[in-house]
Amino acid sequence: MKELKHVIESQQFDRPLLSKLFSLAEKMRDNSKNYQLPGKILATLFYEPSTRTRLSFESAMLQLNGRVISTENAKEFSSFSKGESLEDSIKVVSGYADVIAIRHFEIGAAKRAASVSTIPIINAGDGAGQHPTQALLDLYTIQRHFSEVDGLTVAMVGDLKYGRTVRSLCYLLGRFFNVKVLFVAPPICEMANDIKSFLDKQQTPWKEVEFDVAIEEADCIYMTRVQRERFLHMDNYEKAANKYVINSTSLPKMKENAIVMHPLPRGPEISPEVDEDPRMIYFEQAKNGVWIRMALMMLLLSDID
Amino acid sequence: MKELKHVIESQQFDRPLLSKLFSLAEKMRDNSKNYQLPGKILATLFYEPSTRTRLSFESAMLQLNGRVISTENAKEFSSFSKGESLEDSIKVVSGYADVIAIRHFEIGAAKRAASVSTIPIINAGDGAGQHPTQALLDLYTIQRHFSEVDGLTVAMVGDLKYGRTVRSLCYLLGRFFNVKVLFVAPPICEMANDIKSFLDKQQTPWKEVEFDVAIEEADCIYMTRVQRERFLHMDNYEKAANKYVINSTSLPKMKENAIVMHPLPRGPEISPEVDEDPRMIYFEQAKNGVWIRMALMMLLLSDID
Amino acid sequence: MKELKHVIESQQFDRPLLSKLFSLAEKMRDNSKNYQLPGKILATLFYEPSTRTRLSFESAMLQLNGRVISTENAKEFSSFSKGESLEDSIKVVSGYADVIAIRHFEIGAAKRAASVSTIPIINAGDGAGQHPTQALLDLYTIQRHFSEVDGLTVAMVGDLKYGRTVRSLCYLLGRFFNVKVLFVAPPICEMANDIKSFLDKQQTPWKEVEFDVAIEEADCIYMTRVQRERFLHMDNYEKAANKYVINSTSLPKMKENAIVMHPLPRGPEISPEVDEDPRMIYFEQAKNGVWIRMALMMLLLSDID
Repeated sequence: MKELKHVIESQQFDRPLLSKLFSLAEKMRDNSKNYQLPGKILATLFYEPSTRTRLSFESAMLQLNGRVISTENAKEFSSFSKGESLEDSIKVVSGYADVIAIRHFEIGAAKRAASVSTIPIINAGDGAGQHPTQALLDLYTIQRHFSEVDGLTVAMVGDLKYGRTVRSLCYLLGRFFNVKVLFVAPPICEMANDIKSFLDKQQTPWKEVEFDVAIEEADCIYMTRVQRERFLHMDNYEKAANKYVINSTSLPKMKENAIVMHPLPRGPEISPEVDEDPRMIYFEQAKNGVWIRMALMMLLLSDID
Repeated sequence: MKELKHVIESQQFDRPLLSKLFSLAEKMRDNSKNYQLPGKILATLFYEPSTRTRLSFESAMLQLNGRVISTENAKEFSSFSKGESLEDSIKVVSGYADVIAIRHFEIGAAKRAASVSTIPIINAGDGAGQHPTQALLDLYTIQRHFSEVDGLTVAMVGDLKYGRTVRSLCYLLGRFFNVKVLFVAPPICEMANDIKSFLDKQQTPWKEVEFDVAIEEADCIYMTRVQRERFLHMDNYEKAANKYVINSTSLPKMKENAIVMHPLPRGPEISPEVDEDPRMIYFEQAKNGVWIRMALMMLLLSDID
Repeated sequence: MKELKHVIESQQFDRPLLSKLFSLAEKMRDNSKNYQLPGKILATLFYEPSTRTRLSFESAMLQLNGRVISTENAKEFSSFSKGESLEDSIKVVSGYADVIAIRHFEIGAAKRAASVSTIPIINAGDGAGQHPTQALLDLYTIQRHFSEVDGLTVAMVGDLKYGRTVRSLCYLLGRFFNVKVLFVAPPICEMANDIKSFLDKQQTPWKEVEFDVAIEEADCIYMTRVQRERFLHMDNYEKAANKYVINSTSLPKMKENAIVMHPLPRGPEISPEVDEDPRMIYFEQAKNGVWIRMALMMLLLSDID
């Protein structure tokens, strides 16, 4: 039986599985011709649009010589809108494809989908829940750069309360040794207690620090966007938005071998003026997503193991 | 010259052609590798969205090793919205693809498309008109289950007046011997006279019966959704909607070898609590749609005959 | 280094390059099997919908045995709408595909895209700017019909001020010898001075003439739609719209070997009653677009040269 049947949440991935996934991604980079899923069909079933994530999945399947069927707007435009349950939709689409990447606006949707699906489900983001392939590509990017994750200091900056990206990444970082986590957030967007407790349980030390401390101490600075909608008062938003910014004045403060990551799209929190600095690896990070999704689909659909 | 040039309405299909289609579908199930349309391009041209039908067509073409170009919203978003005639749009898309599956909001649209197209047109539903591939997959599902259609009692339940699915299926059932048709509908949604006359002409007996009679006598119970919009008074709708329901209390009343079908998406008319009963074959029915569409495209585009 | 890195504006194409492109398109028609881009991925990134153009690009790539990822509504539905710069979007999509066809609502968008892209960009229309692949397929259609462009009289009719199609075509016609250009437009939509000056500089004679003169003198009559929105007074619009029409009474006035072209979709300016006249080649013109886009992608992505 397959070790990996669905990809629902980042907690599924222990260190051996992470290691298997990342080394497969690495092997595929070296010789992608050896890794193929000819004739396999990916259905991208997006109940809310996310063009970037959808195109990344589709590119991954096409590079594996597979095929794609796609709906970008399942919620609004489809027969799925006629009151059909998610479960029914999944059962039907299971008959059309070999794997489903689902994006949904409700927490837990991917898990519900997996519970009735006859084919593998990949969670491509479910509401405020998880976005595990993002977390995996983030960790893969860190590991590729530093060779190992153990011992690194990772700063997370921005909207830590609602950002599912940073939450999922914490679950993965908790697997590693001697990782230190620094949280930088406006009071209204602080990292939630469930993640802090998880890190405590994993004996992963974390601290809430000022932005300037974070960019000086961190090996990896993970920037996220502060959402205007979270704030009642515009001036509080602007204070926050202006405070957590990587620009040319930040560069000298950062470690020489640090990296700056971002799940994209970015807002004003990273000024384009720093894009050429080699420590800025957010576009490489985005591209790594294709390799991770290729590797995941190989693990789900082929005999590789 | 090809026997089948376009797929516009279910009346096109006489028994020899149905038999050829279904046996081809069966052969493709056994060995799909022998049936390929490499390099052929399907254009799905949907003037109203129907994700389910679109994905089924696209999956069918991809499984034949063909390719797909697609528009899900031709009415609202496309250059087709700038007052261009359907005929012009078809002439242009004929230059881009090898076969067009068209979904349109107007009765007769598929026929108009076929009259100007240089490539085969498949009607994927035209307004209140026809949806022949649905009727074909329905009949194929019945025939697969019972080995033959002759002699069966088929009950149709729900919105029989506006449901193009049941109308199209009646045209096909009229081709067979000793089929009995039972209609179960609220007064406001009774089967229209043209279909009743057609069945009379074909000497296919039909009766309007109560729901309980139907589920006891029928070999095949074809459920459809009663649309709220048809009713002036909410309580009449609720009376109808509550009356025609398959749930756990219906199961003991049904024949042991009966089947329950539904074109999906379902509403409250089939309770999910019965899904595990082996007589419930609506998801298998949906999957059969892919095989029927594969077989149709083979007949339209290959030398098979 | 490749001669052609991006396709941004028709001015890029001098006569040797046009000749190379058109002869490649001709060779591909004869034996398309020899021209393949297996495994190459085209991303169609459309910030405003244009189903026709998108499907033409996608059909072209699929006929080359390549693959496609697609978004038809980048502006409204995508992560690109969250204030992300065009430049960032392009950098990300560059990591997913081998070539991008971009349609955008702003003049200069394709050029901006090309300035940051790591893969070839093809301008599929940028606002009131350019639509070079349309101009190339137009010229290719003229050249195919007449064998050479030198010496022809080309009439352009309709909205010459805002129509990017006719503007782009003028840039190309200016490359040829002894071409005469006739402009026919309502006063409010006359051809702009920049194009007239360009033609003067190229020593390409042009005249503003009446419609009847144009259809009698022209070898090629390029019809375009007069947009209602340009007119303040409805009766001025109707006067213009009724004046510039090809219908059965126009046919005897036209040269025997003339051709009538149109970028489509057409409005009332060409009556369907003339469609069967062999001089009406707008649908052939649309189909030529696929060959031109195939040839362009071969030049951009293969070693052919």
